[in-house]
Amino acid sequence: MRVALDAMGGDHAPVEQVKGALIAAQEFGVEVLLVGPPDLLEAELAKHPRNSRVSIVPSLETIQMGEEEIVKAVRSHPEASVNVAMGLVKDGRADAAVSAGNSGAVAASAFFMLGRVPGVERPALGTLIPFNSGKLFVLDLGANADCRPSHMAQFGVMGSAFMEEVGGVVNPRVGLLNMGEEDGKGNDLTAESFDKLRETPGINFVGNVEGVEIHKNVCDVLVTDGFTGNVALKVGEGIADYILQEVRATIKSSILFLAAAVLLKPALKRSLKSLNYEEYGGANLLGINGVVLIAHGRSDAVAFKNALRVADLASGSHLMEKMRATFAEAKASSAAGR
Amino acid sequence: MRVALDAMGGDHAPVEQVKGALIAAQEFGVEVLLVGPPDLLEAELAKHPRNSRVSIVPSLETIQMGEEEIVKAVRSHPEASVNVAMGLVKDGRADAAVSAGNSGAVAASAFFMLGRVPGVERPALGTLIPFNSGKLFVLDLGANADCRPSHMAQFGVMGSAFMEEVGGVVNPRVGLLNMGEEDGKGNDLTAESFDKLRETPGINFVGNVEGVEIHKNVCDVLVTDGFTGNVALKVGEGIADYILQEVRATIKSSILFLAAAVLLKPALKRSLKSLNYEEYGGANLLGINGVVLIAHGRSDAVAFKNALRVADLASGSHLMEKMRATFAEAKASSAAGR
Repeated sequence: MRVALDAMGGDHAPVEQVKGALIAAQEFGVEVLLVGPPDLLEAELAKHPRNSRVSIVPSLETIQMGEEEIVKAVRSHPEASVNVAMGLVKDGRADAAVSAGNSGAVAASAFFMLGRVPGVERPALGTLIPFNSGKLFVLDLGANADCRPSHMAQFGVMGSAFMEEVGGVVNPRVGLLNMGEEDGKGNDLTAESFDKLRETPGINFVGNVEGVEIHKNVCDVLVTDGFTGNVALKVGEGIADYILQEVRATIKSSILFLAAAVLLKPALKRSLKSLNYEEYGGANLLGINGVVLIAHGRSDAVAFKNALRVADLASGSHLMEKMRATFAEAKASSAAGR
Repeated sequence: MRVALDAMGGDHAPVEQVKGALIAAQEFGVEVLLVGPPDLLEAELAKHPRNSRVSIVPSLETIQMGEEEIVKAVRSHPEASVNVAMGLVKDGRADAAVSAGNSGAVAASAFFMLGRVPGVERPALGTLIPFNSGKLFVLDLGANADCRPSHMAQFGVMGSAFMEEVGGVVNPRVGLLNMGEEDGKGNDLTAESFDKLRETPGINFVGNVEGVEIHKNVCDVLVTDGFTGNVALKVGEGIADYILQEVRATIKSSILFLAAAVLLKPALKRSLKSLNYEEYGGANLLGINGVVLIAHGRSDAVAFKNALRVADLASGSHLMEKMRATFAEAKASSAAGR
C-alpha cells in the first residue's frame, strides 16, 4: 500500500520520519510519500541509501500555534504538511495518512479534508495494546472528552470492525470499561451506554469490564469515553513507570542483583514499552472516511516504522468497506423503524 | 483512641479482624471494640494471648444481600455489626469505626447513623497512596459515580483538611486529575471544576495533573470524580499486576536470573502492595460526621492493623474539628454573600 507520512509533525521531524520510512519500505515494502519541504527532505534522504519506494510530496507551510487556535490554524494553512498528507488520501494518491503532529490538529485536519464515514457521529481514537494474553483495542482515548451513550455504542461498532478486519479476530468481544462488573453499575453515562451497546446489532457485547481485568483477555475491544480512556491509560502509564523505577531500585539495592540487573535492563525496557500505548504504531482515528493514524509526538524511527506498518495493514484490509457498510446498514435499519 | 471494628464485614471475618485487632493493640496501644456475635468472637479471641485493650460489643444481625438492596438492607437491620459499630461512634463510645463490609453498605450505614458534616454535599472516599517521592491523597474513589463541580471543589477542601491534620503536610497542594496540564483542558466537568477549585478559599489549588505525573510528587491531594478515580486506579492496578507478571516471566526465562528471582520475589511483592491502594489502611469516608474507614473486603490481619492505625491517627488528630470549622466558615461566608 501507499502511505502519506507527515514528515513535519512531532518532536524529531523530519529526521526520524525519514529513517522510519526507509526502514518500513525495506522491511515490509510499503510505499511512503514523505510530505514536507522538498529541500529539507532531500537533504535528509541523502544521508541514507536510496530506496525507490520512498518519495517526496512537497508542502511549504507549517503550523505553529498555541493550543486554543488549533482548529483555526489547521483551516488557515491548507498547504501545511498534515493537510497535504490528508489531501493525498482524499485524492486517492495515498491509501492512508500518518502524522505525529498535535493530535487535535491531526484530528481537525482529517475531519476537514476527509470527513466522516456516513452515519458516524463522532470519530474516535483507538489503539491496540499488545498484552501477552491477547491484544486489546481501546477506544476512545481522548478525541471526545464528553460522550453520549450513542457515541459509546458507535465506538463499540468501530472497534469491532477494526479488530475483525485488522486484528484478525472473529466476532470480537466488546467490553465497556466500568466501575464494577455487574450490569447497571457505573455512572449515568456507562449505565445508559450499557443498554445502548446491548441493543446494538452486529456486535458481540460482553458487558462491563473492570480496570483490574484489562490485561486478562476478557474482551477484544474496550469501549470508554475519551476523558476516562485518556486519564485511565495515563494513570496506568504513570504507575507502570513507578513500578519499574521501584523494581530497578530494588535490583540496584543489592550487590547480588547488580550483575543480573545489567542483563535485565533491556527486558525491563521492553516491558515498559509494551505498556506505553503511544509507542507501538500510534492510534487509529476511526470514523474518518479514510485510514488515519496519529503517532506520538515523541516518536522515533521505530515508532514511525510501526505506525507505517499499522497504516499498511489497515489500508490493505477491508476495514473501510466494513465501516461504510456497517454504518450504512445501521442507518437503513433505523430508517426502516428498527 | 478507641476504634469500633466491624468484625463481621469482609471475606475473612472474624478471623483476620481479631488477629489484626490484637496486633494493633499491642503495636500502638489502640483500644479496639470488636463488633459481632459474642460467642463467635470469644472463641476466636481464645485462640490468642489476651489483651485487655481488645473487647467485644455484641451485635446479633448480619446483612446478606444482593447489590440492589444494600441501602434497604442496612436500614432494616439496625442490629447489624456495621450499624452497631457506627452507633458506638455516634454515642461517643468509640472515636472511629472501621469496616471491611461492602463499601456501599458501609457508606450507607455511616450516612444513616452519623450523618454528614454540616455543609458537606457529598461524602467522598479517599485514600493515601505512599509513593516513594511523597504521599498522595486521592479522592473520590467511587462514593459518587456522578459528580457536580461543587462536589469536586468540596473534595479539594476535605482532602486538604485530611492531608493537613492527618498527613502532616503544611498548606497541601491540591491538583485536579485531568487529560492535560493546561488550564481549560478536559471534559465539561473538569473544566468547570477547575474554575470552582480556583475560587475556593482556603485551599492551595495547583491546577490540572495528568495521570503520568501522579507518582512525581506534583501535588498532595488529587481530586477526581468517583467514576474516574475508581476506574483509573483499577486500570493502574491491572497494569501494575501485568508489569510485575512480565518482570517475573523475564526473570524466570533465564537460568542466570533464577537464583536472583528467589530473593527478588519479596521485593516485587512489596512494590505491588504499595500500589494496591486498598491494602494499606483502607479508604477514609470523608464528609461523614465521624471518622469512618472502609477496608478492602479481602483484608487480612495486617490490612486491619493498618486500617486501625489510620483510624487511630485520624481520630487522634484535629481532622473532624477542622472539617466542621471549615464547612461552617464556608457556609457563613456564602450566607454573607461572598
